[in-house]
Amino acid sequence: MSARPSLRISTPLNGLLAALGLAAVAALTTRNIGATARLSLELVLGGLWLFYVLQLADTLAAWPTADRRALMPHLVIDMVAVVVPLAAFLFADPRDQSLYCGVWLLKPLRHSTFFRLLGRVVARAAPNLVGVTSLFGIVLFGASLVAYLIERDIQPDKFGSIPQAMWWAVVTLSTTGYGDEIPQTLAGRVLAGLVMMSGIGIFALWAGILATGFFEEVRRQDFVRNWQLVAAVPLFEKLGSAAFVEIVRALRPRAVPAGSIICRKGEPGDQMYFIVEGRVTIATPSPTPVELGPGSFFGEMALISGEPRSATVTAATEVSLLSLYSEDFQMLSSSNPEIAEVIRRTAETRRGRAPEA
Amino acid sequence: MSARPSLRISTPLNGLLAALGLAAVAALTTRNIGATARLSLELVLGGLWLFYVLQLADTLAAWPTADRRALMPHLVIDMVAVVVPLAAFLFADPRDQSLYCGVWLLKPLRHSTFFRLLGRVVARAAPNLVGVTSLFGIVLFGASLVAYLIERDIQPDKFGSIPQAMWWAVVTLSTTGYGDEIPQTLAGRVLAGLVMMSGIGIFALWAGILATGFFEEVRRQDFVRNWQLVAAVPLFEKLGSAAFVEIVRALRPRAVPAGSIICRKGEPGDQMYFIVEGRVTIATPSPTPVELGPGSFFGEMALISGEPRSATVTAATEVSLLSLYSEDFQMLSSSNPEIAEVIRRTAETRRGRAPEA
Amino acid sequence: MSARPSLRISTPLNGLLAALGLAAVAALTTRNIGATARLSLELVLGGLWLFYVLQLADTLAAWPTADRRALMPHLVIDMVAVVVPLAAFLFADPRDQSLYCGVWLLKPLRHSTFFRLLGRVVARAAPNLVGVTSLFGIVLFGASLVAYLIERDIQPDKFGSIPQAMWWAVVTLSTTGYGDEIPQTLAGRVLAGLVMMSGIGIFALWAGILATGFFEEVRRQDFVRNWQLVAAVPLFEKLGSAAFVEIVRALRPRAVPAGSIICRKGEPGDQMYFIVEGRVTIATPSPTPVELGPGSFFGEMALISGEPRSATVTAATEVSLLSLYSEDFQMLSSSNPEIAEVIRRTAETRRGRAPEA
Amino acid sequence: MSARPSLRISTPLNGLLAALGLAAVAALTTRNIGATARLSLELVLGGLWLFYVLQLADTLAAWPTADRRALMPHLVIDMVAVVVPLAAFLFADPRDQSLYCGVWLLKPLRHSTFFRLLGRVVARAAPNLVGVTSLFGIVLFGASLVAYLIERDIQPDKFGSIPQAMWWAVVTLSTTGYGDEIPQTLAGRVLAGLVMMSGIGIFALWAGILATGFFEEVRRQDFVRNWQLVAAVPLFEKLGSAAFVEIVRALRPRAVPAGSIICRKGEPGDQMYFIVEGRVTIATPSPTPVELGPGSFFGEMALISGEPRSATVTAATEVSLLSLYSEDFQMLSSSNPEIAEVIRRTAETRRGRAPEA
Repeated sequence: MSARPSLRISTPLNGLLAALGLAAVAALTTRNIGATARLSLELVLGGLWLFYVLQLADTLAAWPTADRRALMPHLVIDMVAVVVPLAAFLFADPRDQSLYCGVWLLKPLRHSTFFRLLGRVVARAAPNLVGVTSLFGIVLFGASLVAYLIERDIQPDKFGSIPQAMWWAVVTLSTTGYGDEIPQTLAGRVLAGLVMMSGIGIFALWAGILATGFFEEVRRQDFVRNWQLVAAVPLFEKLGSAAFVEIVRALRPRAVPAGSIICRKGEPGDQMYFIVEGRVTIATPSPTPVELGPGSFFGEMALISGEPRSATVTAATEVSLLSLYSEDFQMLSSSNPEIAEVIRRTAETRRGRAPEA
Repeated sequence: MSARPSLRISTPLNGLLAALGLAAVAALTTRNIGATARLSLELVLGGLWLFYVLQLADTLAAWPTADRRALMPHLVIDMVAVVVPLAAFLFADPRDQSLYCGVWLLKPLRHSTFFRLLGRVVARAAPNLVGVTSLFGIVLFGASLVAYLIERDIQPDKFGSIPQAMWWAVVTLSTTGYGDEIPQTLAGRVLAGLVMMSGIGIFALWAGILATGFFEEVRRQDFVRNWQLVAAVPLFEKLGSAAFVEIVRALRPRAVPAGSIICRKGEPGDQMYFIVEGRVTIATPSPTPVELGPGSFFGEMALISGEPRSATVTAATEVSLLSLYSEDFQMLSSSNPEIAEVIRRTAETRRGRAPEA
Repeated sequence: MSARPSLRISTPLNGLLAALGLAAVAALTTRNIGATARLSLELVLGGLWLFYVLQLADTLAAWPTADRRALMPHLVIDMVAVVVPLAAFLFADPRDQSLYCGVWLLKPLRHSTFFRLLGRVVARAAPNLVGVTSLFGIVLFGASLVAYLIERDIQPDKFGSIPQAMWWAVVTLSTTGYGDEIPQTLAGRVLAGLVMMSGIGIFALWAGILATGFFEEVRRQDFVRNWQLVAAVPLFEKLGSAAFVEIVRALRPRAVPAGSIICRKGEPGDQMYFIVEGRVTIATPSPTPVELGPGSFFGEMALISGEPRSATVTAATEVSLLSLYSEDFQMLSSSNPEIAEVIRRTAETRRGRAPEA
Repeated sequence: MSARPSLRISTPLNGLLAALGLAAVAALTTRNIGATARLSLELVLGGLWLFYVLQLADTLAAWPTADRRALMPHLVIDMVAVVVPLAAFLFADPRDQSLYCGVWLLKPLRHSTFFRLLGRVVARAAPNLVGVTSLFGIVLFGASLVAYLIERDIQPDKFGSIPQAMWWAVVTLSTTGYGDEIPQTLAGRVLAGLVMMSGIGIFALWAGILATGFFEEVRRQDFVRNWQLVAAVPLFEKLGSAAFVEIVRALRPRAVPAGSIICRKGEPGDQMYFIVEGRVTIATPSPTPVELGPGSFFGEMALISGEPRSATVTAATEVSLLSLYSEDFQMLSSSNPEIAEVIRRTAETRRGRAPEA
C-alpha cells in the first residue's frame, strides 16, 4: 500500500525509538554533562527528528488511498512530532529547546491496540468514572474543610487555609503520605484515618468499575473475533448476512487439554472446528504430521458430505476451539438454497486436493 | 413540567457551579488575600446563594405535581444549600461564615445517576463491606496492641499508649506511611511488614467486593434497559405484561463490527433489532441514507408481515444489537389473540407510511 | 431454644460491646489518666467480663441440644473471652492486666456471616493466595539482596545487611514509603522504581484473585438462596429431592423496574414468582393493598388451577424476581403422581382463604 | 518412577527449605555476628547445597524416562541451584560468596501450580499489561518533564534535571510517597495531585485486567477439570472423543447446602453426579455410612439400568456437583451403538459388586 515499507516499523520498535528520544531529552537536562556527550545526544535527537520527518512523509503518501478516519490520528501525531520540535528550534529559549521533543511521548499511541481498547472501556464507563472522580473531589474538599477547622490554630503554617489543607488531603486520600503535613490533634488523626479509609474505598471503586468494563469489552471482542474467524472460511463467503450471523451465534466454545484427541479417523463427524488459541496436530498418511494454529479451521468436510473423519486430530497444546454443529449448518443451508450449490462445489474441490479431518 | 426551565441546569453545569462556590470558600481562607479579591469572592458566594434560592423555589414549585418520593432528596439538598449559609450569616462567627457554604458539596448529588448506582451497589454489598470494615478494625486494634507491647519502652513518646500506636497502625495499614512513627525493633518491623501486607489484602477484599457488586448491578441495569427498549416499540404497547416479559427475555444480544451488513434488501427477514450502542445506516431509495442510533429499532416489518427486507442496513460503527426472533414473537401472538389484531392494524398503517428495513 | 433470650444479642450490638471494651483497654494505656477515670474504665472492663461470663453460661446451656459442629467456634470464643482476662488478673503483671482483654477482638467473629463467607472465599482461593504471597516473598528477598549490593557501601547504616535492606524493601514493595530509608544511587533508584511497580502488580493480582473468588461465591450463594426460597413454599414441601432440584434449576431470574405491572388481574397466568429483593404491591378488593417483600411468593394459583390472575401485582420498588413456569412445574407433577394430590388439596385450601394473584 | 522417593519433597517443604537457606544468607550479612553463629549458618548453607546436589541427581535420574518438556524447567532450576553457589565458592570474593545462594529463590518455582496459572494469565493478558506499562511510562515521563519545568528554579537540588524529577514522579505515581522530594509551588502541588490520581487509575487498570484474566482462566480450568472428572469414570473410557465432548458439555453444575438429600433410596434416578467440591454421605445397609469426596461420582446406575436409587445420598458439607442427565446420555448411546454394549456389560458387573446410589 506504500512505496516506503521500511518506515512501517513495528509497534515495539516504535516505542523503543520514542523511549530513546525521551531518554536523550532527559539526559540533556542533567547538569554535569560534558560537551561531547551533549553533542551526541543532540545528534540522536536530530536523527530521530529526521526519521520522524520521513515517517510523516510516508503517512502523507498513504493519505490519498487510505481510510482517512482511521489514518487521521496517526497523521496528527506524526505532524506534532515534527512541527513542535522544529518550532522550538526556531523560536524557543535555547536552554529548553530539547524539552519540546517531549511530544514524542505521543508516538507510542500510533498503532496501539491497547489504547484503542482502553479508550473504549473508558468511554463506556465514563459516567461512572466521572462519578467516582466527583466523589474523590467531594471527599477531598470535605476533608480539607474539616482538617482546616481542626488544625488551623495548632499548625497555622501547614493547615492555615483550605488550599493548604487540601494538599494534605490529596496526599492522604491517595494514600501517598509524604509526611510533610501531619495532623497533630486527636480529632485530626481520627479524620486522617477516615480519609485514608475513604481513599482505599474510592480506589476500590475505580478498580471495580474498570474491571467490569474490561470484562464486558473482552466478551465483546470475543464476538467480533468469532465473526472474523467465520469470515475467513471460504465456504461461508457467499452466505447472506443473516445466515452469517446465525453461524456466529451457533458457535460453541470449548477448551481441550493438551494431548486429547479432538476427532478420530473413521468416526462420524458432526461438527467443524475453529482454533482460537493453541495448536492441533493432524495425523496425515504422510510421515510428517500437519500442525494448525490460531485462525485455522478443520473438520469442515463433515458439514458438507457427512462422511467419516478422514484423519485423527490431537491437541498439541491446550486448545481453545469453537465448534459449529452439523444441525446448525444444515438448518441454514436448507433455507438458503444457494448455499447448497456452494457446498457441493467446495466439497468436490477439497476432496480432490488433500485428505482433510 | 415547570414554568422556570432555565433553572433545570444540566448535571455537569450543576457540578461546575458547586465547584466554583467551593473554590471561593477555599480562596477566602487564604491569609494574604486583598480586600478587593475578598469582596469579589464574597459576591460570588452571594450570587450563588441567590441562584440556589431560585433553584429551591423551582423545586418547591414542582412539588405539588411531582413524584414526591423521587423529589424529596433534591428538596432536602436544595433547602440545606440555602438555609445553612443563611443561618451562618446571621449567627456564626464572621471569620467562619463563608465556610458554611461548604454544604454546597452536596449539590452535585442532585440528579446524579452515578450516586444512585453507587448507593445500590453499596446497599447490596453492605453486609460484606461492613464485614471488611470490621476486619480492618480488628487488624488495626490487634496491630496497635502488639506494637504498643513491642515498642513502648524503646519509643515511649510515639508508642507509649494504644491510641498512639493506633495512629501508627492506621497510617501503616492503609499503606499511607507518613514516616513520623516508625518501629525500631526487629519485632516491630516484622509486625509492620505483616500489617502492610494485611493492608494490601484488606484493600484487595474491598476491591473484589465492589467489583462483584458493580458487575451484578450492570447486568441488572441491562435487563431494565432492554425492558425500556422494548417498551418504546409502538407495536408492543398493547401487550399484556406477561407477554411483554417474554419478549424481553427473548432478546438476544450481539455485537457487529463496523461496516458489516446487518440485513440486505430483498432477503427474507426473521428478526427485528434494537440498537443498544453505536449507529447503523439504512440505505433508502432517497440519496441521503438514514442513520439510527441507540434506542432505535428497525426490521419490525419482518415480525408483522414476513415480507423480505425493504432496505439494506449497515453498521456505521461497531454496533451492539438486541435481536428479537420471529418465532419468539409468533409464539406469543398465537397464544394472545388480541396481538394478532394489533399486528394486522399496525402492518397496514406502516406499509402505507414508509419503506422500512 | 434457650431460657435466657436476653443474652442472644444481635451481631451489631455484639460488635459495639467488644468495641467498647477495646476502647477501655486502649484508654487505660494512656499516661495522664486520672485515678477516677482509671477506676471507671476498669469497672467497664469488669462489667463486660461479667456479661461475657453470662454469655458463656448461655452458650454452655445451649450445648446439649444444639448442632455442636456449628456451636463449637462460638464456645471457644466465649471461653477464651472469659478465661484469658481471668488468668491475666490472677497471674499477669498488674500494669498489663487490662491488655489481655484484647482477646475480646475475637467476639465480633461470633455469628458473623461475612467471616464465614470470607473463610470460604479464602479457602477456595488458598493455593493462589499462597502463590501470590510466595511471589511477594521472592520479590522481597530479591529486591533486598540487590539493594544491599548496590547501597551497602554508600549507606552502610541503612543498607548494611540484607535484613536492613529488607525493611526498606517491604516498606517500598507495599508502597507504604515511610521515607526513613531511601536509595541514593541511580541504580538503587531504578531498582526502587521497579520494586514499586512490582508492588502494584502483586497488589493487583491479590485483588484479581479475591474479586474472582467473591464473584464465584456470590453466584454459589444465589443457588443456595433460591433453594431456600423454594423450600419455604408449602406446596413444594412434599416434593422428592430430585423434583426439588429440578424446580430450583428451572427458576429464571429477572429484574422489574419500579412501577411496572408484573401480572394483571384476569390475564391467564403461566408462572409463579419468588421475590428475591424489593417489594411488590398486590391490588386486593379491600381498600388497603397488600405489600410483599423478599422471601415471599405469589401467583402460585396459576401453577395449580390454570385460572386467570385474581389480582394485579405491581413492582413497588425495583424488584428482583425468580419465575417458575407452568410447563416446568407440570412436567414434574406429571412424573410424580403424589404431587398432583398435594396440589389439588392446596388449591382447595387457598381458594377458600383469600384472593391471590 | 524414581529410586529415591525421599527427595520428592512436597511443595510447602520445598519452599520452607529455600526460605531457610535464604534466611541464612540474610543473617550472614549482618555485622555483629559471632564466629560460631557464622559457622553454623555456613553449615546450613553447605547442608542445603548437598541436599540440592542430591535433588539434582534425582532429577537427572528421572530424565531418561520422563516427559522432557515438563521436566526441563525443573532441571534448569536444579542445576542453577547447584552450579552458581559452587562457582561462587571457587571464584567469588569471599565476602560475597554466600550471597550467590540467593539463586535458591528460584527453588519454590519447581512444581508450583500457581506460577503456571500466573504465567498463563499474564501470557493472555500480555498485550494489555504491556499497554498499561507503557501508559505508566508515558505518564511518568510527562509528569517528570512538567515537574522539572515547574520546580527546577525553586528546588534545583531536587528537581534540577528530568532524571531527578523522575525519581519524584515514580515515588508519587506509585503512591509510595517517601517524602524526600516534595513540590513547593502551587502548580507543582496540583501536578502532584493529578499524578497521584493517575497512579490510582493505572493501578486500577492493572487490577481490572488481571481480575478479568483470572476469571477467564478459572472458567477455562473448570472445563478442563470437568473433562478430567468424566475421563475418570470407567463407563466412559471406551467412548469416542466426540461423544466424550458431548458428555462434558452436557454436565450441569449445581451447589447443594449441607444436610440436603441429593437422592433418596427408591426414587427413580435420572442423573448421575460428579463431586467437584465437598463431601457426600451414602447411607448403605451396613452400619458405617460411606463418604465420598471431590473427584468421586455416584448414581451412575441410573444411566445404565434406569432402576430406582439403591441408597440415599446426603450432602455432608455444602457440595458442588455436576449432574449428567439420563436423556443426554441416552441420546449419545443411541447414536453410538458400541456404547450400548459397554453399558450392558458394565451394568452387569456393577450390579454384582455393590449396592450403588
